[in-house]
Amino acid sequence: MSLDSVLARIDNNLPEALDRLLELLRIPSISTDPAFKDDCQTAADWLVADLQSLDVKAEKRQTPGHPMVVGHVDGDGPHILFYGHYDVQPVDPLDLWDSAPFEPAIEDTPNGKVIRGRGSSDDKGQLMTFVEACRAWKAEHGTLPCRITFFFEGEEESGSPSLVPFMQENAAELTSDIALICDTGLFESAVPAITTMLRGLLGEDFTITGPDRDLHSGMYGGIAMNPIRVLNKILAGLHDDTGAVTLPGFYDDVPELPDEIRAQWQGLNFNHGKYLGDVGLSNPAGEQDRTPLEQIWSRPTCDVNGIWGGYTGDGFKTVLPSQASAKLSFRLVGQQDPDKIRNAFRTYLENNLPEGFSVEYRTEKGAPASQMSIEDPAFEKARQALSDEWPRPAAYVGCGGSIPIAGYFKELLGVDAMLIGFGRDDDQIHSPNEKYDLESFHKGIRSWARILEALSK
Amino acid sequence: MSLDSVLARIDNNLPEALDRLLELLRIPSISTDPAFKDDCQTAADWLVADLQSLDVKAEKRQTPGHPMVVGHVDGDGPHILFYGHYDVQPVDPLDLWDSAPFEPAIEDTPNGKVIRGRGSSDDKGQLMTFVEACRAWKAEHGTLPCRITFFFEGEEESGSPSLVPFMQENAAELTSDIALICDTGLFESAVPAITTMLRGLLGEDFTITGPDRDLHSGMYGGIAMNPIRVLNKILAGLHDDTGAVTLPGFYDDVPELPDEIRAQWQGLNFNHGKYLGDVGLSNPAGEQDRTPLEQIWSRPTCDVNGIWGGYTGDGFKTVLPSQASAKLSFRLVGQQDPDKIRNAFRTYLENNLPEGFSVEYRTEKGAPASQMSIEDPAFEKARQALSDEWPRPAAYVGCGGSIPIAGYFKELLGVDAMLIGFGRDDDQIHSPNEKYDLESFHKGIRSWARILEALSK
Repeated sequence: MSLDSVLARIDNNLPEALDRLLELLRIPSISTDPAFKDDCQTAADWLVADLQSLDVKAEKRQTPGHPMVVGHVDGDGPHILFYGHYDVQPVDPLDLWDSAPFEPAIEDTPNGKVIRGRGSSDDKGQLMTFVEACRAWKAEHGTLPCRITFFFEGEEESGSPSLVPFMQENAAELTSDIALICDTGLFESAVPAITTMLRGLLGEDFTITGPDRDLHSGMYGGIAMNPIRVLNKILAGLHDDTGAVTLPGFYDDVPELPDEIRAQWQGLNFNHGKYLGDVGLSNPAGEQDRTPLEQIWSRPTCDVNGIWGGYTGDGFKTVLPSQASAKLSFRLVGQQDPDKIRNAFRTYLENNLPEGFSVEYRTEKGAPASQMSIEDPAFEKARQALSDEWPRPAAYVGCGGSIPIAGYFKELLGVDAMLIGFGRDDDQIHSPNEKYDLESFHKGIRSWARILEALSK
Repeated sequence: MSLDSVLARIDNNLPEALDRLLELLRIPSISTDPAFKDDCQTAADWLVADLQSLDVKAEKRQTPGHPMVVGHVDGDGPHILFYGHYDVQPVDPLDLWDSAPFEPAIEDTPNGKVIRGRGSSDDKGQLMTFVEACRAWKAEHGTLPCRITFFFEGEEESGSPSLVPFMQENAAELTSDIALICDTGLFESAVPAITTMLRGLLGEDFTITGPDRDLHSGMYGGIAMNPIRVLNKILAGLHDDTGAVTLPGFYDDVPELPDEIRAQWQGLNFNHGKYLGDVGLSNPAGEQDRTPLEQIWSRPTCDVNGIWGGYTGDGFKTVLPSQASAKLSFRLVGQQDPDKIRNAFRTYLENNLPEGFSVEYRTEKGAPASQMSIEDPAFEKARQALSDEWPRPAAYVGCGGSIPIAGYFKELLGVDAMLIGFGRDDDQIHSPNEKYDLESFHKGIRSWARILEALSK
């Protein structure tokens, strides 16, 4: 089967592919706002019809929230599942948009043509790159190179309440050899990327209590231990002078980066000065012996997300408070076990409480890190296919945040996921004037055609 | 003139005196919160009317903040000025009160009857002990034994911003032979005391800013310096492991206690175990090489009175905040200069800010410590009068809190001040469920009658 003819067809049929995307973008499928409930149904119907036009057995599957779209098509190669989401973010503040969010259009910009409109990048434009690749392949060869399951969600922007139950109830149907997820971006808008590491998350929310009432600092200042002072000391002790987390055993299950990945990341020439400068900072704060990309992608962290205690209103109150509180989060990597880290933290905290002090925890669930096993040859095949399409070779990258769907495929179905996407840092997803570069759409479609061909072998 | 008949009248008229106090306590004159501005005016009006009922030439005198109440009455003896404050502390946390803070009532407790309500002890109840003593004297003798100036402030709990300008502008009117201040307590709830040492106070209220917006800890956790972490480290560094304050030069102007005062204090047999145990604490937190009474009365301190930053609501938000804030206070002793300590703190803070961070101060005024010269015979006369009223002889003591007014009388008017009060350690001033013992109120009124008589001779 010829890949070249598929790529040529993609190039020739780009105007029609764009028309289809604009049609989908005109449906205001805002999942978080009940006023747009019917529009979410409409978007799902549109996708079902579009998949059916490719001879995919597709149907809308209702949930307690917005429907899923699931479609299957047979093929000779491995069984691939493709995930994307058809719901979009709200559009407020509307007055900051330069055009109507649901009247999408192609615009010329100094950086080339863009598709402007809500959902163009997150995630309708990305989702359609895969569908259009399949359409071109089918038109050229009459069949698809793999067995494919299409799985489109309509609640990604509102917390995915129906996702886990649906995956559990339909586990057999959704289990595949590999999952492809198109909801991420190019690295620094230029380098094609496969996200293979996602950090986990552990939260701790707690209050320490010292004196059993608020005290007057005139009467008790000096002699009474202040819970804020105790909390400050405990939190300040969590990092050493090099930026490393001090909890005993914290780094036990943190793997060193494989040399090949380290070399790949160094080749990315990450501009951390710009990354920090864009938000008003200068120097990296993490472990000093780690590169900035490691700090974001492959190293665990500890951060205080909130702290409060004593008098915080206007003016002054010379109070020694009874209590002080904090919310902490740990980003986890490798095999770090949330329960083990939680125990290490609580042991440290409780060992540093003065006599007579107590602590109350408001427990939060922890999630371990996800790391895809890139030994599966599919990863290297996809990376090569991406490298063939784009000017720079593709890289395996990390992601500092969590993308829960990737973890669910592994946890619920035992399926590894490849996160591949073509968004750019300036796409303004979740903000006014969202756009998707025409180049992202066009080369995205071509990328999937190449990946499908590579995976089929 | 008979003292006995005055004391008898005080005993007989106690119910009416209590009714008047409850009326005053019902006015929520919280000075630090602008929402209660009108209530401060109401409290001042109430006091003016009450003084006028004693034939005192009293009036409300406006300031840029809350008004002063000033009244004069002629008499034969020395010219005495009496100072008290009619404003009160905020009442939060309201849910920890067992009754409404501004619906005062007399309660039976295992330790006797108490007057429950915000301001009952600090300072409306104390202020009224003096007014009621004058009322009884006037009713009994038709005149007062001394020439008296009444001077009531409405901003004591919010830093007294108008006090110094008012005293400067009205210096001639307010200058007297001695000032009496009723805003302190009995020593250990039992020994009548004249406070001759008062710690000063320096407040710092500030916000540090790192990144110019709130960041997502998934994208920036590890690489971006978290302002809460910076703040924790700065605050944790203010004390060393022995409890001493680490600011360079902090102890330069702190005198050692004279041997005779040290001996007197040791004779008081201060029960620090009970003092701390009463509020749920066990070990003293101050400098380990100082006695507990020194820690409260004659040693300087540093305490965080409030801290806040990041997300403090329900649940979790993985934010790296842009800012973190704190309110600090230093209790000062001896010749410690508030400006010098402020500079030392700010230098320390700014030296510990990472590159690109900034700090904004919401400046608070500082007040140095005060020490009275007890050589004036009025001190010994008052001490004897107090010893006559109470079961144990009165003592000269220190006070951990600041009563800046005492320093101002000396500094601005050249007048020594005697601090005599009847509060008890468990009055919970500045806390929920503030109370004033009925015995404090009753014997407080009787004490002032005795002191007025003693000073008139």
